[in-house]
Amino acid sequence: MILKSAIKKIQQNKLFIEKGEEARAYQDMLIKPKGSLGLLEDISIKLAQITGEVKYKIDKKEAIIMCGDHGFAHQGVSAYPKEVTQQMTKSYLNGRAGASVIARANEVNLSIVDVGIDGDLDLPGLINEKIKNGTNDFTKGPAMTVAEAVDAIKVGIKQGERLIRQGAHIIAPGEMGIGGTTASSALISVFSGLNPEQIVDRGTLINDGALKKKITIVNKALAINNPNKEYPLEVLAKVGGLEIAGIVGIFLAAALHRIPVVVDGVIASSAALTAKFIAPGCENFMFASHKSVEKGHKYILDLLNLKPLFDFKMRLGEASGAMMAMHIIQTASKLICQMDTFEKAEVTESDKKIQLI
Amino acid sequence: MILKSAIKKIQQNKLFIEKGEEARAYQDMLIKPKGSLGLLEDISIKLAQITGEVKYKIDKKEAIIMCGDHGFAHQGVSAYPKEVTQQMTKSYLNGRAGASVIARANEVNLSIVDVGIDGDLDLPGLINEKIKNGTNDFTKGPAMTVAEAVDAIKVGIKQGERLIRQGAHIIAPGEMGIGGTTASSALISVFSGLNPEQIVDRGTLINDGALKKKITIVNKALAINNPNKEYPLEVLAKVGGLEIAGIVGIFLAAALHRIPVVVDGVIASSAALTAKFIAPGCENFMFASHKSVEKGHKYILDLLNLKPLFDFKMRLGEASGAMMAMHIIQTASKLICQMDTFEKAEVTESDKKIQLI
Repeated sequence: MILKSAIKKIQQNKLFIEKGEEARAYQDMLIKPKGSLGLLEDISIKLAQITGEVKYKIDKKEAIIMCGDHGFAHQGVSAYPKEVTQQMTKSYLNGRAGASVIARANEVNLSIVDVGIDGDLDLPGLINEKIKNGTNDFTKGPAMTVAEAVDAIKVGIKQGERLIRQGAHIIAPGEMGIGGTTASSALISVFSGLNPEQIVDRGTLINDGALKKKITIVNKALAINNPNKEYPLEVLAKVGGLEIAGIVGIFLAAALHRIPVVVDGVIASSAALTAKFIAPGCENFMFASHKSVEKGHKYILDLLNLKPLFDFKMRLGEASGAMMAMHIIQTASKLICQMDTFEKAEVTESDKKIQLI
Repeated sequence: MILKSAIKKIQQNKLFIEKGEEARAYQDMLIKPKGSLGLLEDISIKLAQITGEVKYKIDKKEAIIMCGDHGFAHQGVSAYPKEVTQQMTKSYLNGRAGASVIARANEVNLSIVDVGIDGDLDLPGLINEKIKNGTNDFTKGPAMTVAEAVDAIKVGIKQGERLIRQGAHIIAPGEMGIGGTTASSALISVFSGLNPEQIVDRGTLINDGALKKKITIVNKALAINNPNKEYPLEVLAKVGGLEIAGIVGIFLAAALHRIPVVVDGVIASSAALTAKFIAPGCENFMFASHKSVEKGHKYILDLLNLKPLFDFKMRLGEASGAMMAMHIIQTASKLICQMDTFEKAEVTESDKKIQLI
């Protein structure tokens, strides 16, 4: 019921188009040649559309990594065994993983959530919201029940709302879970209508043999579960993952409360696409961050109608690209908030006879 | 003489290729799938090649804006009159210009140098290194004498060495000067052999009439001065600018002391190209930052053999893109410095039977 009312509310949350226009006009008053800040201007306009504030201040940046295991992970679709999910979760908390370093370097607070790790982890700082010990093997039946998928989404909504209540101005969800790109490939295939062969890629850098197996496994999961994109919650339950469902919840919370949210690589993006099918309109509150090396990523961004800010050839996940993008978005926000206008700075405006527009 | 010995020393400063290989090998020991940090790994390898340190720490980021006027600026090649050079210089110092905001947002110290503003500015914080009150009109003869160009380069070397002595780990030079893209177009034309028509672009967003005039002016400057790229100092004196010469000096100081330096948009890049012709090898110490909207930029990056990190459709100058790039480079440095190895974190390494390489 909570989910249904959230979906309804999201559909009512339209963008403030006129506030975007106000931001565009204000950008042209700032002491720089018109449009010379390029995408940084576009970002400020989108921030105004999302939040209704022409000068939206970003002081608090939050990232949240959802951790969960996959029941098929023993089948050799990743270069790493399942236990790495737990080991990496520890590393996030002790501050020595990629995500931890990127978070500190970009002044992002980082939360780590156990939404479905296969094993009992009792670590200081780890948020325990475990739905179950990993999904079931989706080559043999649904990864989880619809009720479990909904519960995992609710974990995301709850955690997203916690961050917002604590003052988050922008949020980036990420994930950890060995097998993640296999599940996300299945989701992308269902929602895009493309064949797994067009989507499945090397993830943790697997060789040709493992890649072939990965495609077979996705095909098997789709054949046995027969997911139908008209029932997106069922699709998520059948071929998704607990960490992916958790991220879906974060996207919904952001759209619900009109907080900008940043989409990371291919796994977080598959959650964004799932969220769009569950609650159409929630994608309006999303910024794309980077273009992942994974070939399926491009299709998702097209379906979400989002353009990546940069392409660093990354394929790490863990919200890594999204955290870097949050810093860039924050710079864009500071520019519109802090720059002087021509009038205030007493800088001569452009010559209308020479200026193009 | 100082310049000659600097050039000689730069040519002896070879990259530490073996240190780069060490950094590459170390990257593969860090707790992430091989290569999954993409360009951020490549950056760390280049930092090792430049500095000789596999774990090069970037704590102090410095940007420096060289300000200077152009003698032809009254001819209507910019949407703004010449006085804007002075007005913007004031704005950098009072912290409300685009460059000031980007500097604060990315934790960059910003220095502002008057190397050739046409007018006497006595502002707190402004570094006075004025060579002359703007260049001469280069459509009537050389923009400056070779001695003046050398003096302006020496200003850059001196200021670069000051920043390095004060602890800079990375430097980004930028510029302010109405007419800048006109002068840089002339330089690019000489060094690339391309026609001004292929290079000259809209700068401050000028209309078709002004664009046509801008091309005519560059052609006129080239015809009357007849610069020859085999004498790069003469090229700089004839059709360059004081602020551009100052930036050349920053690039030389960086190469001299093996400090990474970041190339901004089309004007700073034309200085980088000039620096390469003056002191071949100095380009090894440069990172490209962004791809400018100005069409001439692409040719310079090709000649410098540099690839831009991102493309935000910016065309502001003022070291704006380079400062954002410094923050990304710093993140890359923190990753190699702070991430755990598989061994130390007790994370299971990849399965060699499944891993691609």
